[in-house]
Amino acid sequence: MRIAILGGTGDFGGGLALRWALDTPHEILIGSRDPERAQDCAETYTAELGQRGSDATIEGADNETVAERASIVVLAVPPFHIVDTVEAIDDCLSEGDILVSPGVGIKHDEEGASYHPPNVGSVTQLAANAASVPVVGAFHGVPADRFADLDAELGFDTVVVGDDPDAKATVLEITGAINGLGVVDAGGVANAAETEALAPLLINIARFGDRENVAVKFR
Amino acid sequence: MRIAILGGTGDFGGGLALRWALDTPHEILIGSRDPERAQDCAETYTAELGQRGSDATIEGADNETVAERASIVVLAVPPFHIVDTVEAIDDCLSEGDILVSPGVGIKHDEEGASYHPPNVGSVTQLAANAASVPVVGAFHGVPADRFADLDAELGFDTVVVGDDPDAKATVLEITGAINGLGVVDAGGVANAAETEALAPLLINIARFGDRENVAVKFR
Repeated sequence: MRIAILGGTGDFGGGLALRWALDTPHEILIGSRDPERAQDCAETYTAELGQRGSDATIEGADNETVAERASIVVLAVPPFHIVDTVEAIDDCLSEGDILVSPGVGIKHDEEGASYHPPNVGSVTQLAANAASVPVVGAFHGVPADRFADLDAELGFDTVVVGDDPDAKATVLEITGAINGLGVVDAGGVANAAETEALAPLLINIARFGDRENVAVKFR
Repeated sequence: MRIAILGGTGDFGGGLALRWALDTPHEILIGSRDPERAQDCAETYTAELGQRGSDATIEGADNETVAERASIVVLAVPPFHIVDTVEAIDDCLSEGDILVSPGVGIKHDEEGASYHPPNVGSVTQLAANAASVPVVGAFHGVPADRFADLDAELGFDTVVVGDDPDAKATVLEITGAINGLGVVDAGGVANAAETEALAPLLINIARFGDRENVAVKFR
């Protein structure tokens, strides 16, 4: 499958690109609003893959171009850019394509991190309302540093929610194909808020429990 | 320490009473609005302890009586009874006593379980607003059936939140003393909502991921 990661130049997006490229046969594209940045980043990632003995290559281009070429598009952009980003690429999507939403609204103050969803209830719902193809929520609360460190064994889970059964099954499959990453199904987009709220909870546990890069395993 | 469990006649409260009695030297009291029910229940628990080779005994009485006698009081009552229960026992508490709040507001519909906090933000906050002693949130989302099954090895975590450092440290200590139960600190009561939201998330994962009694481990 061809997978585009919009915002693939950040820690989380980069970790996702490299792990998918190393652990699966999927073809990975990096999207950015700045095509040059995406290309530079994709070159760096491809070099990293080579150093790890993989002959996979990662390409970079502007968001619209990679969305046009891919059948799965991950929205690894800040939550307040979700609607703009979906609106910008929606015409580039075809029937059967899938959007993946890892974004979470989080407020930070002196007490800690708190869940701050948009009015529609969750970022996943926000993306779903803006998109013409199915949206699946996944990767909420995945610790970016640990995910981007390819030497780190993951050993944790991510929760997947989505209303379209086929789209959700596809995302469960490609996500669970990353070595050490477990996947669990938590139902439809209506349940995305509780899933997204894991992200601030994990930040609070890292801060107050004096742990780094905390993730979650369901057992 | 002497610990009272109000609502200790249910699965979660019973599991908590028996596990504390088996795994720690703490003295356990069961409270109920119906003192006879509490006594019957305490006798059953004491018999269960005896069958497991423990000579610990559990006593039962009305909520006010056990709250008066204990220094830690667990509010294992339905969330909509939290304020009534705290108001009923508050005069029985002394300085240095601690209330523990495991309750979560959950709404169920055909889509699944969703987090439904009171207007003040969380059940823990609701209890804290009603109480004259420190309130610590803990045990949110602990699967009651699995907790009540004393033959089940736990191997999962519970998240603890509280504003009073000494009260939180005490709850972390006595909770972590239950065999197989890990404890993590997620900060103050302001962070209780994200912690409580674990409960509906775990219900959704159990339902849609076709698992039973799902719990969480942070790693």
